[in-house]
Amino acid sequence: MLRRHPERSLENPVFADAELDPVMPRAELARLEPELRNALLSQQELLRDRAERAVLVVVAGIDGAGKGSAINLLSEWMDPRGIRTLAFGPPTEDELRHPPMWRYWAELPARGSLGIVFGSWYTDFFKEAARKKPNAKRLASLAEDIARFEAMLASEGVQLVKLWYHLSRDAQRQRCEELEAHPDTAWRVSDADREVAKKFKRLRAAADTVVKATDFPYARWTIIPSADTSMRTYATAVAVRDALRRKHLPPTGATPKLDPSPDRFDGVDYDRQLDKAEYEAALAHWQGRLARAVHNPAFASRSLALVFEGSDAAGKGGAIRRLTHALDVRQMRIMAIAAPSAEALARPYLWRFWRDVPTTGRIAIFDRSWYGRVLVERVEGFAKPAEWKRAYDEIRDFEAQLVEHGTIVVKCWLAITKEEQLVRFRERESVPFKRYKITSDDWRNRRKWTAYRRAANDMFAQTDTDAAPWALIASDDKRFARVEVVKTIALAVEEALGIGKAED
Amino acid sequence: MLRRHPERSLENPVFADAELDPVMPRAELARLEPELRNALLSQQELLRDRAERAVLVVVAGIDGAGKGSAINLLSEWMDPRGIRTLAFGPPTEDELRHPPMWRYWAELPARGSLGIVFGSWYTDFFKEAARKKPNAKRLASLAEDIARFEAMLASEGVQLVKLWYHLSRDAQRQRCEELEAHPDTAWRVSDADREVAKKFKRLRAAADTVVKATDFPYARWTIIPSADTSMRTYATAVAVRDALRRKHLPPTGATPKLDPSPDRFDGVDYDRQLDKAEYEAALAHWQGRLARAVHNPAFASRSLALVFEGSDAAGKGGAIRRLTHALDVRQMRIMAIAAPSAEALARPYLWRFWRDVPTTGRIAIFDRSWYGRVLVERVEGFAKPAEWKRAYDEIRDFEAQLVEHGTIVVKCWLAITKEEQLVRFRERESVPFKRYKITSDDWRNRRKWTAYRRAANDMFAQTDTDAAPWALIASDDKRFARVEVVKTIALAVEEALGIGKAED
Repeated sequence: MLRRHPERSLENPVFADAELDPVMPRAELARLEPELRNALLSQQELLRDRAERAVLVVVAGIDGAGKGSAINLLSEWMDPRGIRTLAFGPPTEDELRHPPMWRYWAELPARGSLGIVFGSWYTDFFKEAARKKPNAKRLASLAEDIARFEAMLASEGVQLVKLWYHLSRDAQRQRCEELEAHPDTAWRVSDADREVAKKFKRLRAAADTVVKATDFPYARWTIIPSADTSMRTYATAVAVRDALRRKHLPPTGATPKLDPSPDRFDGVDYDRQLDKAEYEAALAHWQGRLARAVHNPAFASRSLALVFEGSDAAGKGGAIRRLTHALDVRQMRIMAIAAPSAEALARPYLWRFWRDVPTTGRIAIFDRSWYGRVLVERVEGFAKPAEWKRAYDEIRDFEAQLVEHGTIVVKCWLAITKEEQLVRFRERESVPFKRYKITSDDWRNRRKWTAYRRAANDMFAQTDTDAAPWALIASDDKRFARVEVVKTIALAVEEALGIGKAED
Repeated sequence: MLRRHPERSLENPVFADAELDPVMPRAELARLEPELRNALLSQQELLRDRAERAVLVVVAGIDGAGKGSAINLLSEWMDPRGIRTLAFGPPTEDELRHPPMWRYWAELPARGSLGIVFGSWYTDFFKEAARKKPNAKRLASLAEDIARFEAMLASEGVQLVKLWYHLSRDAQRQRCEELEAHPDTAWRVSDADREVAKKFKRLRAAADTVVKATDFPYARWTIIPSADTSMRTYATAVAVRDALRRKHLPPTGATPKLDPSPDRFDGVDYDRQLDKAEYEAALAHWQGRLARAVHNPAFASRSLALVFEGSDAAGKGGAIRRLTHALDVRQMRIMAIAAPSAEALARPYLWRFWRDVPTTGRIAIFDRSWYGRVLVERVEGFAKPAEWKRAYDEIRDFEAQLVEHGTIVVKCWLAITKEEQLVRFRERESVPFKRYKITSDDWRNRRKWTAYRRAANDMFAQTDTDAAPWALIASDDKRFARVEVVKTIALAVEEALGIGKAED
């Protein structure tokens, strides 16, 4: 490794090596290339064959440092069929109608494959840090969001390889000037590139803030010296190769401890019921209230995510149908959540739910939901204790992001007694067109009634937040439950929009 | 079946029965319900278990006829886990950045499942037909689009069940008045519903036009009498049950005959080459031209779809990398097309390619493409003769839709001689980091050189259209080929945008 400017004073130790603008002769790179390529290819083959983790290469750094070349390098030196480039620009209309992290979730690579991210979740953080007077609170909050997101990815089998491209001010300016000198390459120099030299110190300080705040043991930054093409190529290839060789280390935090949770079912009054006339009047009333609320102009900039959980035969399907009678089919979507597909299993747990979060102005109804992780997957042992215990945090964070974006989140648990469940199971068995609803799984789950109840109580204790509350709905009487569901949702929407109080 | 208005004069035979507003007593529906539900459920089970076809229920008809209730009915009477509702409103920003049919393609149900479509591809046709003076040419063209789309779906294993909801003018008005009379249901009546009575004759004539023009043997309309809820429910359930019971009949048109195709490879001058200096200058020149063209403001409302095909080792990957040097990574996406996933195999062939068509302002690069159907799938026997022969039409139609939307489509075939391929295979085998590129498949394909050549020639004869032309690029010299690829694309973009001629 040659150093071109050994005399330069180093103002910032993080970028000290890179600002020396180290150079590698082309012949030296040519000599090293075959072995590097072999190593990258064989690591990629192992990655694919084992399919234990996905790798996400995050490409970031100072504008004009030649970040774009990393893609061409990796897709030339590795097998492009196992690589997906995820390049994000300013958010599109469609992206703006979802929470900010949605677009990154949608594109997460499957285990066994490699993604290269441009324009990642660092964009806003770097921009804020590069302002003349960064807002310290916003900086801290953005750093916190990144830490949480990356810890989740790392825990869920996504290895992060973060590359920061850097070079000295002189080298950056010189590179831009050389490109600008010729009409065939001038297009490569953007306005942002031209600005870099002027604000170099500020940008370097911002880079320092970003890198220091987000250099986690499970997601480290590598600084790529970018002034010289061969050196940049070499450093990129080595960083990716070394990351692929390393065993993926998820965050080592202790598994969260769960305190014993209070029994929320004790407070449910299962005897509540409505007669037919009361039911019809009340249902029509609350359907109307809900319909008017979601047709209110104020709803156009909001959205609604509805979660339905409960024991088997608690009446989720019937309640959802009464609810949807009040809604325009073009405005809503019902997701019947079954066992995850192979596609979903290859990605972080919440991936498939992120795909279905409601866009602005819309309603997403989840018939069973992301809570499967801490209910059926916990009780049946499909998720390891570390996984489902971690899930409470991940779910709170997920729902907080929805709420932050303006989504109204309402979660309904339909609660029935064990006796009522038995009555319904027997009825399902005796009516031919209801028989498909009852399987041996249902009887097996019933034998684990206590375990499910404990899981539900832990879930309430951990996820009944002000922003996204749980409603426990007594459902031994179907009529009462159906009205209660529509009423709960109508009131939540009215409250969120600040309307309808006068009607009560 | 009771008839309430036997005396009414019938102005339109298609809707005659429906305009009699037949009524079914609730008790009668209750009596018939168990058997209907049993039949629907057992048919749904067969559909799922056999997984030979998907079923798409298209719900259309006159506003205010209670179309929305069809969803609730089917998801109540059938297993909602096998049903997906696809409700489309006015196109979103994101949808407008794609060809009109894109949103329907994206949502096609997999074999074994059932989709219910609201706001389908009939919306524009019905609107045009309902204008005071419909444009006959546009009507014919819209009908033609629908015919082509539905024939493709039916051929590719999607059974269409088309339901048209209709009732008399008086019944429609009465239904709206009853709903409007109460604040809890008034929201159900839209402005469109209110308009129906006023323009009833015109709308009925339009409905007549639509139904008659699109009642295909493989995709028939059923008219659902909609004045009475029980009758509507009964007729919907019967129509879906009967469709599920029927064997799915794809269109019976004769397999298209292929005339012998001229040998396009005879005209390729494989000796063309560039020396290193010529190459570097020419590559930089055409990269610059291409970069300026796609950064031209006129490109912002267009998009670019690039197809790369050719023999193994023809140099597609290398050419694509030289091309991408000229492009902003945020503007483009490379799709390396491998064997289809299970998800893709369960849907019409073009589904996975439709998902990746470029949005406005973007560039999609296909390293292998939808032409696999008429190349590898034909030669290796993965597609039946009827399938790949039909594919030429489907592909022309697909590309025509892209072009119609403003997408510039350029298709490059990299042509090498059999001798040059051997040289490159041997080189790949001898260089460790190139060895992953050569497999026994490649050697096997090589033995079928003549069959692939015939398939390519047929493909050129069938799909080298003015709107989406093929460029045959002599590729024995990699330098010549790479420059030629970038030049071909740059010129195509310049020509489409009407720029750059002066520079030639």
